[in-house]
Amino acid sequence: MLLEHTLLRPDATESDIVPLCKEAEEYRLFGVCVNPCHVSLAKKCLKGTGAKVVTVIGFPLGAVKTETKVFAARLAEKDGADEIDMVMNISLFKSGKYAEVKEDIKAVAGTVTVPIKVIIETCLLSDAEKREAVKAVAGTGAAYVKTRTGFSGGGATISDVRLLFGEWGKYGLKVKASSGIKDLKIASGMALAGAERIGTSSGAAIAREEMEGKKGGEKPAR
Amino acid sequence: MLLEHTLLRPDATESDIVPLCKEAEEYRLFGVCVNPCHVSLAKKCLKGTGAKVVTVIGFPLGAVKTETKVFAARLAEKDGADEIDMVMNISLFKSGKYAEVKEDIKAVAGTVTVPIKVIIETCLLSDAEKREAVKAVAGTGAAYVKTRTGFSGGGATISDVRLLFGEWGKYGLKVKASSGIKDLKIASGMALAGAERIGTSSGAAIAREEMEGKKGGEKPAR
Repeated sequence: MLLEHTLLRPDATESDIVPLCKEAEEYRLFGVCVNPCHVSLAKKCLKGTGAKVVTVIGFPLGAVKTETKVFAARLAEKDGADEIDMVMNISLFKSGKYAEVKEDIKAVAGTVTVPIKVIIETCLLSDAEKREAVKAVAGTGAAYVKTRTGFSGGGATISDVRLLFGEWGKYGLKVKASSGIKDLKIASGMALAGAERIGTSSGAAIAREEMEGKKGGEKPAR
Repeated sequence: MLLEHTLLRPDATESDIVPLCKEAEEYRLFGVCVNPCHVSLAKKCLKGTGAKVVTVIGFPLGAVKTETKVFAARLAEKDGADEIDMVMNISLFKSGKYAEVKEDIKAVAGTVTVPIKVIIETCLLSDAEKREAVKAVAGTGAAYVKTRTGFSGGGATISDVRLLFGEWGKYGLKVKASSGIKDLKIASGMALAGAERIGTSSGAAIAREEMEGKKGGEKPAR
């Protein structure tokens, strides 16, 4: 499944990360998404399972310096991260400095070999700004544009995913939907709208819901 | 005044930082508290005024690796930060790894010459944990223990400040109260309870309120 089982709460302990990884393995999710201080542990837990470790950089404000994002990305890759979700510098973006936003992303994407997703924090952007943000992400080497961090307001919306996916043809950027995706119905809607990856703290529950649905589907019609 | 005029919103632009600095100067606040990507600009704006630039590290989750906190702290000092507020590794703390929490703080405090404040995120801790957190901060070289980031739940409470200030005698750590301090009454209460520094996005409004109060106080009694 294209779900990233996500646990980014600051008070999530190492004892929370282990079951997260076990569930990702059990339900054959894409992997887990954890904070940088948990990458090594998650990597160890998931060894040999095929499930991936995703981490976050400049999260959730995007307002650290480019040098710090680059440093943290290198460290994450060294620790075994398979993918990195970085937050765009929203302040620079809102200041209209699109070239600098692009450079910030380029610097991170250029320093690691693993795929980069760029969180543009859709809840802080108008629709025109969302399109402009996708343009800023394009051509940087990043693979995905991702909707939200979950720390700056409401969850992802289907219309956001549709809008971002609509830009796909122009720029070849895949879409990750994240934040507030709590059940199968929402997750499926996001996937249908074009999200190739879904970040959710309810990864296991959604997978269970899907499996039960399938079982139900196998029953002979009454 | 002991107020740090604070603007940490991810979408705060450079055009928001300039008036923040002007107000800090005008109302003779302690200084401003801004994200790392705004330190250089704030330093330039405040040159010659005596107002200080405070920034944040590992903010607001505290869940980046120690090496990244150290790297970001050095960069902030180089950019001109006069003080650094770092977030404790709350995950390690909740895992009971107090020695590692202390090492994380020591590494940052030992790498820069400017004063360090450690945000323990009181809203995620029980009272017993708050006392344990102060103990973890003690002896690291940090100067202050600070209540909250404002990104993981409600604002600072007077009882938190009282509790932290109560530990002062044992460990010599000053207290910074932060998050949700919106007016003079709350700010004064925090100061009275023992906060030697107050972080607030309403710095100018509180200063104005205080000045108006003083003017009122000068009126002859009727």
